[in-house]
Amino acid sequence: MSKLERIEYRPEIQQVEESLYTLGNGYLGIRGCFEEGYPSGDTIRGCYINGTYERVPMMHAEMAYGFPTVQDKQPRVMDIQTINVYLDGEPARLLEGHYEAYHRMLAFETGESVRRYRYITCTGTVGKVCFRRLVSQLDRHLAVFRVEIDYDGQIEVRSLVDGNVENYSNRNDPRTGQGHTKLTSVISVGIDRETISLALKTQSTEIEVAALVEHRIFSEAQTFVKSEVKGTLAETHIVGRGCLTVEKWCVLSDSLRVENPQLFNREHIKSLAEKTYEMLIKEQQAYYQDIRATLGIEVRGDETVNQALQFMQFQLMQSVGRDAYSNVSAKGLSGEGYEGHYFWDTEIYILPVLIHTQPERAKALLDYRHRILPYAKERALKLGHRKGAKYAWRTISGIECSGYFPAGTAQYHINADIAYAFLLYYQMTDDLKYMLDKGFEVLLETARIWMDMGHFKEGVFMIQDVTGPDEYTAVVNNNYYTNVMAKYHLEWVVKLDDIFQNSSYSGAYKSLRDALLMDDSELSLMKIASETMFLPYDEKRQFYAQDDSFLSKPVWPFENPMYQRRPLLLHYHPLCIYRHQVLKQADTILAHMLLEQYAEPPEICNAFDYYEQITTHDSSLSSCIYGIMASRCGMSEKAYRYFMESVKLDLENTHGNTKDGLHMANIAGALMSIIYGFGGFRVIEGKISLRPQLPEKWDSYVFSLIYKKSILKVEVGESVFIRRLSGEPVDLILDGQKMTI
Amino acid sequence: MSKLERIEYRPEIQQVEESLYTLGNGYLGIRGCFEEGYPSGDTIRGCYINGTYERVPMMHAEMAYGFPTVQDKQPRVMDIQTINVYLDGEPARLLEGHYEAYHRMLAFETGESVRRYRYITCTGTVGKVCFRRLVSQLDRHLAVFRVEIDYDGQIEVRSLVDGNVENYSNRNDPRTGQGHTKLTSVISVGIDRETISLALKTQSTEIEVAALVEHRIFSEAQTFVKSEVKGTLAETHIVGRGCLTVEKWCVLSDSLRVENPQLFNREHIKSLAEKTYEMLIKEQQAYYQDIRATLGIEVRGDETVNQALQFMQFQLMQSVGRDAYSNVSAKGLSGEGYEGHYFWDTEIYILPVLIHTQPERAKALLDYRHRILPYAKERALKLGHRKGAKYAWRTISGIECSGYFPAGTAQYHINADIAYAFLLYYQMTDDLKYMLDKGFEVLLETARIWMDMGHFKEGVFMIQDVTGPDEYTAVVNNNYYTNVMAKYHLEWVVKLDDIFQNSSYSGAYKSLRDALLMDDSELSLMKIASETMFLPYDEKRQFYAQDDSFLSKPVWPFENPMYQRRPLLLHYHPLCIYRHQVLKQADTILAHMLLEQYAEPPEICNAFDYYEQITTHDSSLSSCIYGIMASRCGMSEKAYRYFMESVKLDLENTHGNTKDGLHMANIAGALMSIIYGFGGFRVIEGKISLRPQLPEKWDSYVFSLIYKKSILKVEVGESVFIRRLSGEPVDLILDGQKMTI
Repeated sequence: MSKLERIEYRPEIQQVEESLYTLGNGYLGIRGCFEEGYPSGDTIRGCYINGTYERVPMMHAEMAYGFPTVQDKQPRVMDIQTINVYLDGEPARLLEGHYEAYHRMLAFETGESVRRYRYITCTGTVGKVCFRRLVSQLDRHLAVFRVEIDYDGQIEVRSLVDGNVENYSNRNDPRTGQGHTKLTSVISVGIDRETISLALKTQSTEIEVAALVEHRIFSEAQTFVKSEVKGTLAETHIVGRGCLTVEKWCVLSDSLRVENPQLFNREHIKSLAEKTYEMLIKEQQAYYQDIRATLGIEVRGDETVNQALQFMQFQLMQSVGRDAYSNVSAKGLSGEGYEGHYFWDTEIYILPVLIHTQPERAKALLDYRHRILPYAKERALKLGHRKGAKYAWRTISGIECSGYFPAGTAQYHINADIAYAFLLYYQMTDDLKYMLDKGFEVLLETARIWMDMGHFKEGVFMIQDVTGPDEYTAVVNNNYYTNVMAKYHLEWVVKLDDIFQNSSYSGAYKSLRDALLMDDSELSLMKIASETMFLPYDEKRQFYAQDDSFLSKPVWPFENPMYQRRPLLLHYHPLCIYRHQVLKQADTILAHMLLEQYAEPPEICNAFDYYEQITTHDSSLSSCIYGIMASRCGMSEKAYRYFMESVKLDLENTHGNTKDGLHMANIAGALMSIIYGFGGFRVIEGKISLRPQLPEKWDSYVFSLIYKKSILKVEVGESVFIRRLSGEPVDLILDGQKMTI
Repeated sequence: MSKLERIEYRPEIQQVEESLYTLGNGYLGIRGCFEEGYPSGDTIRGCYINGTYERVPMMHAEMAYGFPTVQDKQPRVMDIQTINVYLDGEPARLLEGHYEAYHRMLAFETGESVRRYRYITCTGTVGKVCFRRLVSQLDRHLAVFRVEIDYDGQIEVRSLVDGNVENYSNRNDPRTGQGHTKLTSVISVGIDRETISLALKTQSTEIEVAALVEHRIFSEAQTFVKSEVKGTLAETHIVGRGCLTVEKWCVLSDSLRVENPQLFNREHIKSLAEKTYEMLIKEQQAYYQDIRATLGIEVRGDETVNQALQFMQFQLMQSVGRDAYSNVSAKGLSGEGYEGHYFWDTEIYILPVLIHTQPERAKALLDYRHRILPYAKERALKLGHRKGAKYAWRTISGIECSGYFPAGTAQYHINADIAYAFLLYYQMTDDLKYMLDKGFEVLLETARIWMDMGHFKEGVFMIQDVTGPDEYTAVVNNNYYTNVMAKYHLEWVVKLDDIFQNSSYSGAYKSLRDALLMDDSELSLMKIASETMFLPYDEKRQFYAQDDSFLSKPVWPFENPMYQRRPLLLHYHPLCIYRHQVLKQADTILAHMLLEQYAEPPEICNAFDYYEQITTHDSSLSSCIYGIMASRCGMSEKAYRYFMESVKLDLENTHGNTKDGLHMANIAGALMSIIYGFGGFRVIEGKISLRPQLPEKWDSYVFSLIYKKSILKVEVGESVFIRRLSGEPVDLILDGQKMTI
């Protein structure tokens, strides 16, 4: 059975554990806090609804035109997880009194989290306590908590719904929120026998989030039940003895998706009347079994790694938004780091994994980008572009929420990253209809920005003053990553134009072109720009330079003790970092992974050797890419080392900030390491290829590919087996050999 | 008589007039607000003590290491200028009732400001009102206000000292303060017959500013006098009739300079007992006459321009700090723009004018830089430098107060600018002792930064990631201005070492070297860096490039209406500005003015032609430099046009923000235009030269030069006359010809 398990309670990492034990379903996320609370120590007692946002003022030390004056912030919503337990009046809280036989487990096969312990009261009587919870994968509005108590004495259960919540903040860490923590107000709280209803509203955006919480009580003995509103919280108080089980069925909804959340909840809870907790567990089990049978990544011969991969697949799926209102926060729904914002992590790390397992969910992420296109168009004008769309570097609602443009707005590559994701979706699914409906519009509007900001200089196309993925080098000219991604982006706009013209959609496409005010001259300029795109190259060293001036800077003085503090961003002024050759994360190397067709293999490996030495991996987006490219360059031991860094990042809290939530891009990156790294998967010009390698320590590993509706299962052991589970035959290139599966 | 005169009251420009009519003495500054107030409209009712500062928090939208978390802010101090006048109970305020014969004048020959009008009460009775004021040039603590009233009826005068003051702010303009307006608290207020004493303290820095205000009353009729404390203000109430004159003798001091300001004031006022207002006027007249006789710039044949130049000389002298606690704010003591901060304006614009007229006051400005050297050393470490001193881009106390580093801290050239000023002082005065005492230490510590941040690459010395004077291009490599100034700076450190070794100070110098932990290897590296300094050059166009990548960017689309709003900084995002060839202000052109020896004359003029076309002059530091260099390149009409832009900038409020204070660098720049522009003055290797030209519209102009204690008076008309007013004979080069005066 695959699970995350603990047999010891360690208060010093309780916030990290809250992140690891998060349950969610892409809509609703609940951190794994103890229902009964902790006797001491910090907690981030979070519950979140994906896509909800409050707007808070953004203050700048010195204002400039186009700096955002407000930003989105994902609000913590009501606390529904609190269930206080008293045994003969004693709070049965760990460390408050004595306990034994602590056991905690999150089962990836059901999505249920179970935590048990025996509590010994001051009179020496032992009570058995077991907390269970699940967040439904089939009903996004539903979460259920369940506590089972066996105690020979008086048992009291006080189950709360608390609307007085505030977000976490830390002024000294730019990666967490800073101030503005009270984002919501309670607008209604009521009780109806064992049922509590509570609604919040975000203060300025007025998004309502409502919760309806029904208590189900099971006991052979007599129980006393009373519910009560106390200010901004409501409590259901249950008194019994012997064996007592209380279930807390929570329905949550929000006004972005439903007109009247409170009414919606009342209707919805009725539909659950016949359901039992056991039935939910069965449903979940079937749900996960289905996915795993066709889609799961597995490793054989190293169970620790395999369990970690199961954990990561489980958490990734939990955090991915499933509608156009939501996306994937940098920390999923597992914390408040980066204020719940969506970044390019989605398109470059998460979508390339999802596309192989759940293309429909990948599409929902693209729908979100299409939905916020109007904000990107507005932003483009604000940034001084004549036309086109410039996506926000970080956002929830669509507006730019980056407070530091050199490592935010200046990352124009986000436009190409989004285009890349649409194109990956198209190449993997052949869904030309979707490109007609949504994809092409996004591709064209984002491509227009390259044409507006770039320019032809002595026959080549150049792009000035952008920041690439590496945030330790900012606002430079001709960043290789940006330029090569833009090249690809422009190339495909032209290519799609041709595909549409020669397709059954040619009529509809003509109307789309008109609606987008496109003409042939615009396209032909894009073609020339793509063909003549300047890619900075170092002739002597035979690899691509990160940007025009990167290689002319001095290398970071790694050997000098004064410069050995990490991460750099918390210990050195940006100017000190910028004037050196030093990388926070993969930049040119990432471009080589996404678009290896634009460089020769020796160039790619030369680049790897050079950039690796000057990369600190201070970003959690780095190790996985270096691992994948180490595989590409045949350095299998190194690849494995990087892969293990990704695997351990959250599970062992190696970056020290897992308390703020799981690093979703790193999680996806670890999974990509299997498919793109060890599996050597690539898609170029719509054709897929594999170059599988087997890490020494493993017997074999398995992953799936969904390609044009066919499901392939790839098993790499001593030899490689590729099975087609469903769909039409598939052409692929295995180790350079064409074949049909 | 030279003066600034008005015969009409225009309420719509009353804030601008407040700036123009400012009186000050480098220590104390009082804006020219109406004593009796205005019936409506905004006022910036400012009084300032140079060098005082409060510290306020600086909030960043996204914090990074080394960003300042507090900043200095020059506090507005107590309002001492309010004198309300009532005629038979009616407030005799302009526009409130009827008035006629309005006349206002600021006499540059006495520093007295006089404002008269006749007020007609509702009964038709006419009262004559005349307000006079002066700020003493000889006693920095003293300002006197005087009101003369002639009215056939009851006259009431209510003279206030109000401690409840707040600074001005405007959230939308980065050039003014944003928030944090209440900087001081009243700590004591008292009365003693006609004398009011009031003291403030800045809230966190606890700098005390005390005022003692004595009222002197002159009347033939009986008067009634009563003083009263009302909360945080005190009022002296005088009732009389007929002819009534009230004088308000104000003594101000602060705890930066004197131990007990309140006690100091009480002693100080005693020393003024025998003085009369008339005596003060006489003293002032003598003071200004002395200066003008030897030092004044004058133009003959265009009285409008001449008056403007008198205004500018007058205001420049009023605003220059005269001790090591103070410097010259961007707006002098005439307003609150840029929060009273000191910039490089002092060293590159103001000091080169002062050095010709008042070298002792130029030295006081250098003393200030030496005094704050410890802050610059501390800042260098914070910025990741191994050693050396990095001066704050903007400051009062010495700490970095720039909230936007790309156009603040990144302007490393401030180090070279300060060095340039010390070297100009040295070359003009031969004061080697001062260099030993203070100058060399500053030069060396600032030069160390170049050695730490620059690096040798293929035999040339390069400086990465800095911003030059032009703030529309930020964080670039090898900015010509920065590099050539650093070259000069390093060259002179080496040169001075040699001079000291061969001077009578060689012993003291050896101790200094030891104290500064200098050795020969450090110096020889500086020498090589200076000699091999990379200066970006465009071979095709034959001029120096602003930086490595500047000329590869597209030129700002000046012809496109979408890009014609001004100033750019208030209408376009920094990234939009940065990725174009567009200048806010002179950059390479300024370098050519300061250091013409490093370029050939045709290169200088090629550069002028090119950069001029892409400069918006959105900075008030620009036109004067372009004017001076137009003279250098023989474009006399153009030079005159630029000169006139500088002349009009404040007097006609052409930048729209003179309300926030006078643009001191522009004022100095207009004066430089005479000396460096039309006069063609330069100092190279300690030798001075002139290339005088006469603007067509003028009969002649006159300016002075103080060179090694000799005073030269240069008169340029049909021919050029140079007279030595005092001192030893002087060698100079006139139009390329060596001569001795």
